[in-house]
Amino acid sequence: MSVTAAKGFRAAGIAAGIKQNGNPDLALVVNDGPRRAAAGVFTSNRVKAAPVLWSEQVLAGGQVSAVVLNSGGANACTGPKGFQDTHATAERTAGALGRGAIEVAVCSTGLIGVLLPMDKLLPGVDAAAGQLSEHGGEKAAIAIKTTDTVHKTSVVTRDGWTVGGMAKGAGMLAPGLATMLVVLTTDAAVDAEPLDRALRAATRVTFDRVDSDGCMSTNDTVLLLASGSSGVTPDEAEFAEAVRAVCDDLGQQLIRDAEGASKDIKVEIRGAATEDDAVEVGRSVARNNLLKCAIHGEDPNWGRVLSAIGTTRAAFEPDRLNVAINGVWVCKNGGVGEDREKVDMRYREVHIVADLAAGTETATIWTNDLTADYVHENSAYSS
Amino acid sequence: MSVTAAKGFRAAGIAAGIKQNGNPDLALVVNDGPRRAAAGVFTSNRVKAAPVLWSEQVLAGGQVSAVVLNSGGANACTGPKGFQDTHATAERTAGALGRGAIEVAVCSTGLIGVLLPMDKLLPGVDAAAGQLSEHGGEKAAIAIKTTDTVHKTSVVTRDGWTVGGMAKGAGMLAPGLATMLVVLTTDAAVDAEPLDRALRAATRVTFDRVDSDGCMSTNDTVLLLASGSSGVTPDEAEFAEAVRAVCDDLGQQLIRDAEGASKDIKVEIRGAATEDDAVEVGRSVARNNLLKCAIHGEDPNWGRVLSAIGTTRAAFEPDRLNVAINGVWVCKNGGVGEDREKVDMRYREVHIVADLAAGTETATIWTNDLTADYVHENSAYSS
Repeated sequence: MSVTAAKGFRAAGIAAGIKQNGNPDLALVVNDGPRRAAAGVFTSNRVKAAPVLWSEQVLAGGQVSAVVLNSGGANACTGPKGFQDTHATAERTAGALGRGAIEVAVCSTGLIGVLLPMDKLLPGVDAAAGQLSEHGGEKAAIAIKTTDTVHKTSVVTRDGWTVGGMAKGAGMLAPGLATMLVVLTTDAAVDAEPLDRALRAATRVTFDRVDSDGCMSTNDTVLLLASGSSGVTPDEAEFAEAVRAVCDDLGQQLIRDAEGASKDIKVEIRGAATEDDAVEVGRSVARNNLLKCAIHGEDPNWGRVLSAIGTTRAAFEPDRLNVAINGVWVCKNGGVGEDREKVDMRYREVHIVADLAAGTETATIWTNDLTADYVHENSAYSS
Repeated sequence: MSVTAAKGFRAAGIAAGIKQNGNPDLALVVNDGPRRAAAGVFTSNRVKAAPVLWSEQVLAGGQVSAVVLNSGGANACTGPKGFQDTHATAERTAGALGRGAIEVAVCSTGLIGVLLPMDKLLPGVDAAAGQLSEHGGEKAAIAIKTTDTVHKTSVVTRDGWTVGGMAKGAGMLAPGLATMLVVLTTDAAVDAEPLDRALRAATRVTFDRVDSDGCMSTNDTVLLLASGSSGVTPDEAEFAEAVRAVCDDLGQQLIRDAEGASKDIKVEIRGAATEDDAVEVGRSVARNNLLKCAIHGEDPNWGRVLSAIGTTRAAFEPDRLNVAINGVWVCKNGGVGEDREKVDMRYREVHIVADLAAGTETATIWTNDLTADYVHENSAYSS
């Protein structure tokens, strides 16, 4: 279903030959209207790929007719030629569809610092345009995979309108987003400004709180396109909630497919003085390599949780900290709590709760364990 | 030679039975004077182990007669009982030596959240006091090892005076120091204030710029004790330089023994607008798990360097960044530079230079690669 679950959209996914292994590598998503409002959120990395620089300009206009996405190359750190290639990709897409290039967003993912094979990519755009279909969402989701082991899609349907989407990403997930491409579509009749508000509110508490390895990509992009073809303009809060639900589902799918992971770790911070404190502490815990190794070894090593909390600026007193792992309060008041032998860590999901005892704010960050497979996957070849 | 290279010091290292495997686990360093000025630098982690809280009080007086160190248990997150145990350790040491407990610094390293076996540790203090020797420095250095594969010592001798020391640490090395215990001694006649200045200046550019895995310990301590027994008061700059040289050497030894590492990585930042910028960028690069995996795989993946630089607040323009790996400028002006095939990464030391082209300041951060062995070592058992 993916990006074609909502009415008014067609999509395609093909193998253009960008990837040397012949796998699908080019996707196209087209908004057939009647409306074409859009919103976008991009990487906060200051080294931005050419497609990000281009798409930021496109989104400034608040309208997107089509999104063209490629895997097999990030087109990042590729200089003026890389930007020209992105521009040419948008122009070719616009020409094939009879739209304006300034309404064509471009997304790329893959190795940094390599120019795209435009002799393959541009004919691929034409081929994809020829295969656009109202049932093409699944193929588009498959074509944007890089090291993903599965393609990721999600759909929420409400009273007469739908929000759906696709995501790719398996490593480099981090706050500020990270090599993650997401295209969401809706047939709700929503203008660009409320679309933007809904998307930012959703990504702030979903993708921004998924932190696989603390690394932030140059290419992250989340787009939300509205066709208005349902004719329904939902209540803004209800719409925002639907967008959040789809983002949350896709974010969970990203973590479950993180490179080499054997555990999904939910880091829940409670009792923080502010939400910012809760997020800062959650990220610090989620990024602690020693803790992530311990969880991999099914070792409820709460000392590493406290050690990570201690590096933050959040409000807390060390002797009031409490930590539970899988429901067992192994640390109470900054010291030894219940018997750590009681902690059952056999299952894939691990739930860490850290109570700062400094207020009432909370935040949850999702991460995964650090494994030898992660090292192998990220050292055996360039990605 | 270690802590007994300088005149006026005795040391011992014994197996007190704190470690279950029977390895040496208790060290004692005694300053026989005539002076006993001292300086200390402690972890900036806000969750501090009991011995750190105690030793900070001791150092506030500017005088240290003895340091008692144990491996086999960090005595961190152990509450009031843990602090009582540290206090009792200082009292026992003071009693055995005929000194005041307020001049006895205590250091511990090992697993967090476990009380020390005081029934073994206290008799161990007596035994160590009975074995103190002017040749005991090596044994003391051996007794503070945890996952270290080798013990680390260093000595610098100048005109009539000496600075020497020992260090332990193999993981959790990070800015602000990290499970790292260092005791330096000198027979120079230097007061507490210039000692403190020399030690802080040295650690700022040595141990603080060694970052194995971004994790910061609860127990880090660096102490510098001066006996004055040489009768020589060196020029302050010359003395500071000698302290820096010993710290630099010990810091290098720590990186070379980092857990599971197969590459030592020197991250040199040039052309920064400020030294703070250079340090921030260097740490960001040194902590990037994806880059550390790539280096392990001998892949000169400069895109991951740019990606890490892009997450910082330092002054730079993306299209002016230059990166060299082992002398080959693989990235020029933010894009593809020399052929990456030219980069020879067969040797253990890897040298990354990132030129921000934003000024003239520099900083060098040392780190190591991320390996499957690191994961095994930190997941197979608690540490």
